[in-house]
Parts: sequence; structure tokens; C-alpha cells
Amino acid sequence: MLPVVVVHGGAGHIPKERAQNSTSGVSAAARAGYIVLKGGGSSMDAVVEAVTQLENNPSFNAGCGSVLNVKGEVEMDAFVMDGKTLATGAVSAVRDIANPTQLARLVMDKTSHACLTAEGAKQFARSMGIPEVPMESLITEYSRMRWRKNIAPDANPVECQMGKMGTVGAVAVDSEGVVACATSTGGMLNKMEGRVGDTPCIGCGGYADNNSGAVSTTGHGEAIMKVVLARLILFYMEQGQSAEAASDSALAYMKSRVDGLGGVVTVDPRGNWAARFSSRQMAWAAAQKDTLHYGLYTGEHFTQSIDEPH
Amino acid sequence: MLPVVVVHGGAGHIPKERAQNSTSGVSAAARAGYIVLKGGGSSMDAVVEAVTQLENNPSFNAGCGSVLNVKGEVEMDAFVMDGKTLATGAVSAVRDIANPTQLARLVMDKTSHACLTAEGAKQFARSMGIPEVPMESLITEYSRMRWRKNIAPDANPVECQMGKMGTVGAVAVDSEGVVACATSTGGMLNKMEGRVGDTPCIGCGGYADNNSGAVSTTGHGEAIMKVVLARLILFYMEQGQSAEAASDSALAYMKSRVDGLGGVVTVDPRGNWAARFSSRQMAWAAAQKDTLHYGLYTGEHFTQSIDEPH
Repeated sequence: MLPVVVVHGGAGHIPKERAQNSTSGVSAAARAGYIVLKGGGSSMDAVVEAVTQLENNPSFNAGCGSVLNVKGEVEMDAFVMDGKTLATGAVSAVRDIANPTQLARLVMDKTSHACLTAEGAKQFARSMGIPEVPMESLITEYSRMRWRKNIAPDANPVECQMGKMGTVGAVAVDSEGVVACATSTGGMLNKMEGRVGDTPCIGCGGYADNNSGAVSTTGHGEAIMKVVLARLILFYMEQGQSAEAASDSALAYMKSRVDGLGGVVTVDPRGNWAARFSSRQMAWAAAQKDTLHYGLYTGEHFTQSIDEPH
Repeated sequence: MLPVVVVHGGAGHIPKERAQNSTSGVSAAARAGYIVLKGGGSSMDAVVEAVTQLENNPSFNAGCGSVLNVKGEVEMDAFVMDGKTLATGAVSAVRDIANPTQLARLVMDKTSHACLTAEGAKQFARSMGIPEVPMESLITEYSRMRWRKNIAPDANPVECQMGKMGTVGAVAVDSEGVVACATSTGGMLNKMEGRVGDTPCIGCGGYADNNSGAVSTTGHGEAIMKVVLARLILFYMEQGQSAEAASDSALAYMKSRVDGLGGVVTVDPRGNWAARFSSRQMAWAAAQKDTLHYGLYTGEHFTQSIDEPH
């Protein structure tokens, strides 16, 4: 059953013309993470590699392709967690770097802190030799078009917000049975400057504990925060539920208690995994035993050999 | 049993000459929160009032009296949560305002977001008409002395960090049985610029849910985050443990799993409360049935009439 990596490309409503790119993007990311694991890399190496690929892919709301805040700027959040030590690293509202997840990992590895925000995060990136990139290089025509549409006088921000692509993330178990998670996002379309969502908030955007498993979440950030979604799923698993049942229970609780939709990828330390969502769609892919699994709509589950081109 | 408010002034090692100020400060804050509750105010009104008093008191590490970051500046975090709706508001790394907890409440009440950070939080404060205060007005001689001592070439930052005053906070239940929490901090002495600790992170610095209770935490922030301490206590209470037993179980878990010390104040919706800590000291006070309870060392529990001057 080990190793395994499971990736999501965000819960929401993916426009038809973008569906193919989403599915191939998460499949490529899962494959990249799996190659790391098969090469003896740790689950942390694998989730950072998978999420880095999604950040570099302009089809997703993380890194290049991030949604814009109300001022038309990119501010990104990211989070990583190691299930063996419970060590974590996060950045919030960080600007002008290509790969926030790699920076979150450096916060974990190179500082005594768990989270750095805004200008302080950027200064830390500089001190680590991470190249600054122009904000323009993170902005796609699509994200600018959506931002313009949303600041138009006749825009309905709630409607525009609903159902669009969310946060990306990954969970993995390596051959040592160590679990890890990584989550990365451009946040919420037309958010206020400095808005921090669920992603960099431990237990909300993700959680990893070798005693129970690992989770990465996506969806309506403020709802995910209210129920501390990732930690909730692992509590259910500690009480004996499977990764799939615990994911469904927690998503149902979030819907009934705070009317929020979302999706998750979940693993337990033995390699059982789930990709579940209450939103209309979630692009997801998993790699295990040289097989690639993927889907987009509820109930979809395709498989193919990991070596076969998607 | 209702209403009740419980306040903490931070877990750690309080120097002898500061003990009296700590105890009288938390007692005054508990009394102020209790007056709000007796006047028909909500638990949210009460915790914000209690924590505002602690922020305005230079003896505590929140608002005026905050510890300084490595550059000698004040950056503050605060969090509030309403147990009825699970609504939350937080600010992180905010500068130049006197009362971060009041700003966190405005994030909850006036935005669709749950957290604003750094410059974005400051701009929001300005838009709400909150007066900007000079950073100097938040810095005490004591905090500057400690900062200087810590940047000295022969300083032992770990030793200097250990056991000093932490975060402040409060929990309350109003006469309607609604629970709430508020937590506020200047963070960790000589922290990096932009460091965000447990306080503004939902489930870590606090959590409130009418179905189980409310918690505000203090102590080693990175350890509190790793175990999502406040949410953990409420999970234990959901499984049938009392406020006191759940607080002790979770603090013991944090010590054994990640070697972290801290303290908490906890209430359940019926008004049972606890003030527990694994650190050497925690200044705490509670007000219930016109009686003021307070203590500083493990096992201490003094009582007096609420009207009696402390």
C-alpha cells in the first residue's frame, strides 16, 4: 500500500473549457510526487514537489494563476506539516515569490517559528536566497479578467466567488509510514488586502500526525476555519472511522453547521486514502502501486498505469 | 452558575516583583467582564472588555506592554470567537493600535473574512476609524530592557524566552448560555518580523462552541499550534470529560508529545470552569455568583466578594 500520494486542485465549479487542464495538472502533480517517493524521498519531499508543480501551473489558484485581491494584487498563503514530529511551517499574505510552499518548508526547517506573514515572510525569503519575481509573472489573463469582472459596478461578488477554483494541496505517506501534507493558495477572489484564509492555519488548511493520518483541505475558507476541518477529520479517524468515512462525516458537519462546501484529500499511515468533496467538482489524483487514479465529478474514479501519458 | 467569566494573564514564570501587579490586573479584568455580564451584556462583550483591560495594562504582554520583535518593534496578534455561530475574527502582526482584540471583533462583525494581517489589518483599522497610536506608546521600559538584554552578544535567547509572561485571554458564558473567547498577545520575545503565533490561529489560541464550551490558551505558541490545543480540549469535553479534566489531559498531551508548556482557561455552557497550567505560574481570575476567584501558583485558589477591592 505504501508509498502513496494524493493531490487536489481545488474544490468548486470548474468551467468546462478548463476541466481537461485541471485533470491533467493534478495527474502530473501526483505523478511527480510519486516519483519522489519511489526514489526514496520523504512524504514531505513528495507533497512539496507535487504542490510546487501546481503552483507553477497557471491553471490553478496558487503561485502563478493565483486569484487577485481587491487591489488587483497577488497575496499567497501556504502550509506544510510533518506527521512524525508535528513540525509545521506556514506563510501568509506573501508576495512576489513563485513557490510559497517551498518557503513554508523553509520556515519549518530554518526558523524556530511556525508562521511568517506579509513583509516579514518576504524578508525571510530574501535571506534564504529565494529569487523575487515580479508580481506580473504570477498573474494570468484569466485571473485579471475575473478580477475586472468582479470590481465592475454590476458585479455580484458572491455569485462570482461561488464555485470557482480553490486552493491546491497534497498528502502522502512514504515507505517509512511517515505522513505529510502541503496546501497552497492565492486565496479568495477580490479578498481584502491582508486577508488570511484557512490554508496557513494549522488544523484548518491541513494537518498531519503519524498516529492518525494527514489531510489537505480546499473550499470555503472561512467555513473550513470555523470547524477546523483537517483536525476534525483526524479526530474522527482516531475514533475508528476510515479516511473516507471521516472525510465525509466532517464535510457533512461543515455543511450542516456553517453551510460551507469544500473538499479534502486524506490518507492514513497504512496508505488508505480518500478524495472527497461536497462542492460540485474537485480535480484530484492519487498515485499508488504504480497506478494513477483521478477524477473531477462526484463518483468519477478513473485509473491507468502511472507510466501511461495522461 | 451563569454568568461567568475567567481570565488569564499569561502562563510562564512571573518575576516576584511583578506578581502583585499580575494578580490585581487579572482580578480587575475579570471584575470588568463580570460587570458587563451582570448588566445583560453578551459573553462576547464581556471577553472583549476583559481583554481590553489587560491590553491597556502595561504589566501584560498584549497591547501596551507587548514584547518587542528582533527589530525592537511591536507586532500584535488577537482572536475572538462566538460559540453560538462559530463566527471568528482575528488580526496578526498588526501595528500601531492600542486594542487588537477590538479590531479582531470588527473583522468578525464588519467583514466577510476571518483574519486580516499586517498592513491590511492596519488599513482596515483606519477604515473603521480606529485611532493610530505611536508605537512608542505601546512600549514599556521593561519590554525595551528585555529586548536589549536579548540582542546582547552573550544573551541566551532560549533561557530568556522561557518562563516569561505570555499571552492574555478570557472566556465567558452569558446568562443566555452563549460562550465566547478572546485572546491577545505581543507574541514571543525577539521574534522575527512577521512571526505569527498560536493566538490568531483558530483552535490554537482559542475556540468557542455552544455545544461544548470555550477555551483561551497561553504558553509556548509553536507547541500549542502543533497540538491545536483549544480545539483538543473541547474534543475531550465532547467525549464527556469535565472542563478541568479536559484541560489537564490536553496540557499533559502537549507536554509529552511536543515538550511544550502552557496554560488555559476553560468553561462549559453550564458555567463550570477551570484555570489550569503546566508552566510554573499563570495569573488567573474568575468571577461567578458575585465571587472573585484568583491564583498565581499551582494549587492556589483565593476567593473574595466581587465588590471587595483586591
